Amino acid sequence: MIIVMKLEATQADINNVEKELTNFGFDTHLIKGTNRLVIGAVGNPSLRENMPLERMAGVEKIVPIMKPFKLAGREMQPDNTVVEVKGIKIGGKEPVVVAGPCAVESREQLLEAAVGVKEAGASIIRGGAFKPRTSPYSFQGMEEEGLKILKEASELTGLPVVTEIIDERSTDLAKEYVDILQVGARNMQNFQLLKIVGQTGKPVILKRGMSATINEWLMAAEYVMSQGNYNIILCERGIRTFETATRNTLDLSAIPVVQSLSHLPIIADPSHASGSWKLVTPLARGAIACGAHGVMVEVHPNPKQALCDGRQSLSLENFKEMMQSLATIK
Amino acid sequence: MIIVMKLEATQADINNVEKELTNFGFDTHLIKGTNRLVIGAVGNPSLRENMPLERMAGVEKIVPIMKPFKLAGREMQPDNTVVEVKGIKIGGKEPVVVAGPCAVESREQLLEAAVGVKEAGASIIRGGAFKPRTSPYSFQGMEEEGLKILKEASELTGLPVVTEIIDERSTDLAKEYVDILQVGARNMQNFQLLKIVGQTGKPVILKRGMSATINEWLMAAEYVMSQGNYNIILCERGIRTFETATRNTLDLSAIPVVQSLSHLPIIADPSHASGSWKLVTPLARGAIACGAHGVMVEVHPNPKQALCDGRQSLSLENFKEMMQSLATIK
Amino acid sequence: MIIVMKLEATQADINNVEKELTNFGFDTHLIKGTNRLVIGAVGNPSLRENMPLERMAGVEKIVPIMKPFKLAGREMQPDNTVVEVKGIKIGGKEPVVVAGPCAVESREQLLEAAVGVKEAGASIIRGGAFKPRTSPYSFQGMEEEGLKILKEASELTGLPVVTEIIDERSTDLAKEYVDILQVGARNMQNFQLLKIVGQTGKPVILKRGMSATINEWLMAAEYVMSQGNYNIILCERGIRTFETATRNTLDLSAIPVVQSLSHLPIIADPSHASGSWKLVTPLARGAIACGAHGVMVEVHPNPKQALCDGRQSLSLENFKEMMQSLATIK
Amino acid sequence: MIIVMKLEATQADINNVEKELTNFGFDTHLIKGTNRLVIGAVGNPSLRENMPLERMAGVEKIVPIMKPFKLAGREMQPDNTVVEVKGIKIGGKEPVVVAGPCAVESREQLLEAAVGVKEAGASIIRGGAFKPRTSPYSFQGMEEEGLKILKEASELTGLPVVTEIIDERSTDLAKEYVDILQVGARNMQNFQLLKIVGQTGKPVILKRGMSATINEWLMAAEYVMSQGNYNIILCERGIRTFETATRNTLDLSAIPVVQSLSHLPIIADPSHASGSWKLVTPLARGAIACGAHGVMVEVHPNPKQALCDGRQSLSLENFKEMMQSLATIK
Repeated sequence: MIIVMKLEATQADINNVEKELTNFGFDTHLIKGTNRLVIGAVGNPSLRENMPLERMAGVEKIVPIMKPFKLAGREMQPDNTVVEVKGIKIGGKEPVVVAGPCAVESREQLLEAAVGVKEAGASIIRGGAFKPRTSPYSFQGMEEEGLKILKEASELTGLPVVTEIIDERSTDLAKEYVDILQVGARNMQNFQLLKIVGQTGKPVILKRGMSATINEWLMAAEYVMSQGNYNIILCERGIRTFETATRNTLDLSAIPVVQSLSHLPIIADPSHASGSWKLVTPLARGAIACGAHGVMVEVHPNPKQALCDGRQSLSLENFKEMMQSLATIK
Repeated sequence: MIIVMKLEATQADINNVEKELTNFGFDTHLIKGTNRLVIGAVGNPSLRENMPLERMAGVEKIVPIMKPFKLAGREMQPDNTVVEVKGIKIGGKEPVVVAGPCAVESREQLLEAAVGVKEAGASIIRGGAFKPRTSPYSFQGMEEEGLKILKEASELTGLPVVTEIIDERSTDLAKEYVDILQVGARNMQNFQLLKIVGQTGKPVILKRGMSATINEWLMAAEYVMSQGNYNIILCERGIRTFETATRNTLDLSAIPVVQSLSHLPIIADPSHASGSWKLVTPLARGAIACGAHGVMVEVHPNPKQALCDGRQSLSLENFKEMMQSLATIK
Repeated sequence: MIIVMKLEATQADINNVEKELTNFGFDTHLIKGTNRLVIGAVGNPSLRENMPLERMAGVEKIVPIMKPFKLAGREMQPDNTVVEVKGIKIGGKEPVVVAGPCAVESREQLLEAAVGVKEAGASIIRGGAFKPRTSPYSFQGMEEEGLKILKEASELTGLPVVTEIIDERSTDLAKEYVDILQVGARNMQNFQLLKIVGQTGKPVILKRGMSATINEWLMAAEYVMSQGNYNIILCERGIRTFETATRNTLDLSAIPVVQSLSHLPIIADPSHASGSWKLVTPLARGAIACGAHGVMVEVHPNPKQALCDGRQSLSLENFKEMMQSLATIK
Repeated sequence: MIIVMKLEATQADINNVEKELTNFGFDTHLIKGTNRLVIGAVGNPSLRENMPLERMAGVEKIVPIMKPFKLAGREMQPDNTVVEVKGIKIGGKEPVVVAGPCAVESREQLLEAAVGVKEAGASIIRGGAFKPRTSPYSFQGMEEEGLKILKEASELTGLPVVTEIIDERSTDLAKEYVDILQVGARNMQNFQLLKIVGQTGKPVILKRGMSATINEWLMAAEYVMSQGNYNIILCERGIRTFETATRNTLDLSAIPVVQSLSHLPIIADPSHASGSWKLVTPLARGAIACGAHGVMVEVHPNPKQALCDGRQSLSLENFKEMMQSLATIK
């Protein structure tokens, strides 16, 4: 790390900082600039957080040099991770499409959606059995009943299924029925949940938190990986900004930025980002053109009757058109 | 709610929307404006989320009229809630000060801090036993050992103690040792945890999520209250903005806004918001002057050796000065 | 507009609001909901801003119904505007590419860039003669000398040229030399400048302000159009968010949103949005795939020696690769 | 500055970067860390912007060390600047209150407001003669007629007056009539206007742009100061965030942060920040308690009839109460 000293720092201040650094096992290098002194400190950066150097007299600021993530970073693993589930590869050359309703509402609804999206070319089926809702008075999901239906959909279509988990109990249940576990945006920094899904060893779709920096998102992946589970698919789903014309602002720049920093596959969710079905196809096209390894979209056989998020769901007809439109992007 | 029709909506579109509203039990009122039609719909708004009216031909947008929160809202309970813990009243005329270290690091550290902040005038002692850290490689807290020390601090000083809980297990443990449970910013929309703390019946400090609107924050309170637990203290701790000079931007406007919308007490945490101990006293003064029912600040007997957040911790000396400075605001 | 009354509004409050509305020439329609009263007011909304109804007893909030923009809106002009300059059509089916250096630095540099980008397929040449710089100590542009070089580049290549103007004087000069005037992000709400470029009658590229909502951006276009100049090309160039991995966050959702609200053509500038040349091609691809009518990118014959924004400039080689990559998106 | 090299940088990469730095007159210092190399470069940082080092092979990122502002910074001038206008000191120990209507609407309105706010204790009178409005169809100000009325108000009360200027013409007019020129938030990065007000030599209230970082704001002050005009009063007026309960988010942390970085006085404008008169008094209290050198608020003798911003204007009665409330903060 680099310690920038204040213009008015005294020699005693400098000596004290050097001594503190040496005590913590750092080697120090002094660089005398035109106006101020800068100290380069070489050593174990994890010691850093226990050294509030900012509190020492004469210190202006600290600039960390090392990236905080290790397992998730491309530096230690230059080759792309490809997550493979039931023969579907996420992170390879072909983009994948994850599709299905926001929530499992009934056997009929999910199976109709599953068969429909498969026919149109989807690779993975999604459906929520546990729904984290902003209001305690909203529909909270079919729970284990929904998981059984998801499993049936997987058997019927031969495609893997993904569902969101929200705590230890739902994770324990879901891992018996589905192929991929999803950590939602609101739980991206629920570190206990990250450890729990890490321990299952199952592939994980890790959504970006609404106000998470790319660094924090990769640190959340690091939590899962620190438990030995490296099968992580990152999912950009919009960040919170001042713009209210869309529910969130899909940050497509995050796709190439993440790909330069990390080896993990990354997909985008234009349905939750935009909150409007009319914006889903243009944004899905944009995500694939930017280099995303896939997209995740909401599809409902009858969006007008959806128990959640009907306004952002594609109908099966809309979905077919989206798939045709995506095919033209090379 | 209000349904705004498009300029080009046909009579058939209008008839369809009216029919749909009538089917769901709404009374409709048509208002013909200069250019476009607006439909007022009177009925049970909770049905609304299952009616994706935005998808119907001719509909431009939907404007909800009712507030989504009920128990947390001032409309149903006009009088201020005062949460009382061991004789300390939060939400009354006198502002309270919650103080103590970020993390319980040792018996000596916590007891020294507890005695020190009590002497300087603090009303409640804080200390973290379970630490949700951005990095899996950081100190994660003393857990039950830390809870025991917090209890001892409470017995020694006679003051109530608060600690953050992060999942079901930590809640089950903490409720046996401490007086107030804290839900951290990253868990504000961990709805499972909100239900669990709701069921304990213990007073809860509910921090605002980093990117939570005031509406979402009150809906999180609603989750806790929907379990029958009305002892909630809201805590503004900074929101995420583009400004990087401070860790977050303390949103002091939220104090009077929340007080107009809700009867729940509200305090502010300038330590986490700013990330810098030098900003804590001016912002604590600002919060009290804005009408906050109290402040929560980090105090460490030896900030330079703190295992977490040392750069934002006040020393006991700093804390005494802050208390004197707060006393001049009437 | 809709006036939502408070739960506790009295009959006298309601009467007063109705009377005020009637005085200002509005027709009123009362809708009695389950809990509260809502008043629909039909009349001239421009009177609204002189009626601080929010101050009246019993009023909770006002919901405007009409869109604030008229000339820029699609409602009054359903067909797409196509801006044509020297035979180049912006807003038609074929996306256009505007390319060239951040600043005109010398005759040699600009002509080399102009010929190079034309050969690779660009339709319009850009180059800054007046540079609005964050620091007063930075290079501020070649001014009229630069405009002459831009004109020469246009004559040499047969392509139209665009340059940014920053005040009345630079507009007066530029309109004699270039084909398109650009209003930069920092001047999007410099209403005096908007009027001045409106009066020139020349085509205008209007960049979105860093923190401008889509509504405000369209209102800025309305300013230009209110002077009788309808040749406006909107340009999304990134909005300010908490994410620091990119300079700004390119808001590609704005492309389809603007296209639904307005008939004006819209392009995207991935160079300024990202601040990094490595992100330009993926984001340009994303913009075109989302439906943008074109992109504007920075190209420098020798980016390492650029006097401004070298880190985000493509070399001519990079630009050729981008053009090939864009050609594959249909 | 510090150049952080990539993990995989080769010796040739390092040599090239060193050579480039040496060519530009920098001294280089190599620090070999555990994993990667860091180069400290000592020299004239203004050369930096012409060196796109980020484009060189092996370079990961550049960390600037020097602050970009000089004249506005506290390093070069440790003592607080006190701006004195007609005997009123801004930046001293006593907070000042600037008050008056959003716009000058008539002689009667302004004089009534001026006399009223003086009686209640205001130190400076404000009133807009040129109004930058989001809509071209809104009231744009009384212009020179308004300036004459402002001058009369100053003569009547003996207090200095301030008005916003929006371009060269309005500046030329206003400087003949008023004591202080105001640069509005939307013009904070209208660098031409900053130079023009710099050249007048008159005291300037410089509002923070809605999405301006504190650094950019101080650089805007630097523009004015670079013309030899050091009489600058900074004014925090809210930044744009995702929260919609208030018009903007008043960033009170900016008060102590600016005071640590700069010697210039700083005041706050709770009227524009919040957009609601009910929030003005609590936020004005908060600003003074945080250490602001004053506040600027909108006061209208009859807010219900205000031609602009009536919903955020205090009545004279409200203003008196605010003044009494501010007096209790020490």
